[in-house]
Amino acid sequence: MAESALSTEQILVAAEDVLRRFGPAKATVVDVARALGVSHGTVYRHFPSKAALRGAVTERWLDRAHAALPAVATGSQPPDVRLRLWLETLYRAKKHKALDDPELFATYQVLVDESSALIDGHLTALETQLAVIIAEGQDDGIFAEVGDPLTLAHTVFQATARFHDPAYASTWTTPTADQEFAALVGLLLRGLAAR
Amino acid sequence: MAESALSTEQILVAAEDVLRRFGPAKATVVDVARALGVSHGTVYRHFPSKAALRGAVTERWLDRAHAALPAVATGSQPPDVRLRLWLETLYRAKKHKALDDPELFATYQVLVDESSALIDGHLTALETQLAVIIAEGQDDGIFAEVGDPLTLAHTVFQATARFHDPAYASTWTTPTADQEFAALVGLLLRGLAAR
Repeated sequence: MAESALSTEQILVAAEDVLRRFGPAKATVVDVARALGVSHGTVYRHFPSKAALRGAVTERWLDRAHAALPAVATGSQPPDVRLRLWLETLYRAKKHKALDDPELFATYQVLVDESSALIDGHLTALETQLAVIIAEGQDDGIFAEVGDPLTLAHTVFQATARFHDPAYASTWTTPTADQEFAALVGLLLRGLAAR
Repeated sequence: MAESALSTEQILVAAEDVLRRFGPAKATVVDVARALGVSHGTVYRHFPSKAALRGAVTERWLDRAHAALPAVATGSQPPDVRLRLWLETLYRAKKHKALDDPELFATYQVLVDESSALIDGHLTALETQLAVIIAEGQDDGIFAEVGDPLTLAHTVFQATARFHDPAYASTWTTPTADQEFAALVGLLLRGLAAR
C-alpha cells in the first residue's frame, strides 16, 4: 500500500482485524504494519505507542457500539418513554455485540480493562445523556425532584449494570434476561416518577 | 491427630487454611490431610471428592458471610426500614470480607465460580428473605402491589448487584461507594412504595 495514502481509519480497521485474529495477548504493531504492507514506523507516525493504538481501536469500537444512543436521548418522546428506550437501546446494542461476534467482544473486554481512563470518559458521556432525559422529566413534572439529574443518572446506570457491564454478558442470553431487564427498568421508572 | 476424633468441621477449617496458604490452583486434598496429620483416605471418608470438599468449604464461608441476614429479614422494624437494613447488612458484610482478608476473598471468588449450582441455591435463599420483607410491606400497604414479592425481590437483588457481587469488590472502597449505595437503595424504595 502507498504509505502516503494510509489513513488513521485504515490503520484502526487493520488493527481491529489483527486483534480479532491473533487475540489481544499476541497482536503486535508489526502484525498491523504487515497486514497493511507498510513498515511499523509508518504505524508509529499515526500512533505514538502500541497502547495508544489499542486505546484508539477501543474508542472506535465503543463509539460504534453506542452510536444510536445520542439520538434516543434527544428524541421527541416523553422523558419516561425515552428513558426506557435509551436503556433498552444500550442493552440491545451490548447484547448484539456479544452474540454476533463473541471473539471480538472478548477481545474488547481485555482492551477495556487496560484503558480505564478512556472508559471512565465514555461512561460519563453516557450518564450525561441519561441526565439530560431525567432533567427534562423533572422540568415537565413527570419525574420527582428527588435528586439532581446527574446523581440520579449515575444511580440508574449503576442499577442497570447487570445489563450493560460486559462482565455479565453470559447472562444476557438466558431465557428470562429480557423480562428481568423490563422489570428492573419498570421499578426504576416508578422510583423516578412524580407522585 | 487421632483419626477417630476428626470432625467434618475440623477438615473444613484445615481446608480453608490450606486454600488460603497455597491458593485455589495449588491446594490439594493431600495438603489438607498433611495439615491434619491424617491420611488423605481419611479426608475422603468425609468428602467423596476434592470438588465436594471445596464445595463444602465455600458453603461454610457463604453461611458465615450471610449469618446476620435472616435475623434482619424477620426483625420487628417496618418493612421499608428492614429492607434498607437488610441490603446494608449484605453490602457491609461483603465489604468487610473483601477488606479484612483480601487473599481469602480472592480464593473464594475462584471457588464460587466453580460451584454455580451451590451459589444459585444461596442466591435463591437470599432473595427469599427479601421476598418475605416485600410481602409484609405489601400486606401492610407500605409497598405497592406492582409485582409478586419473589419477582420484586429478584429485581431488587439484581439492581444492587454492584454492591454484593464479588466481581465489583474493587469498587466498594472508593470514597463515593457508600453514598452511591444509599442513593440506589433510596430510589428502589421509592419504586416499591405505595402511592
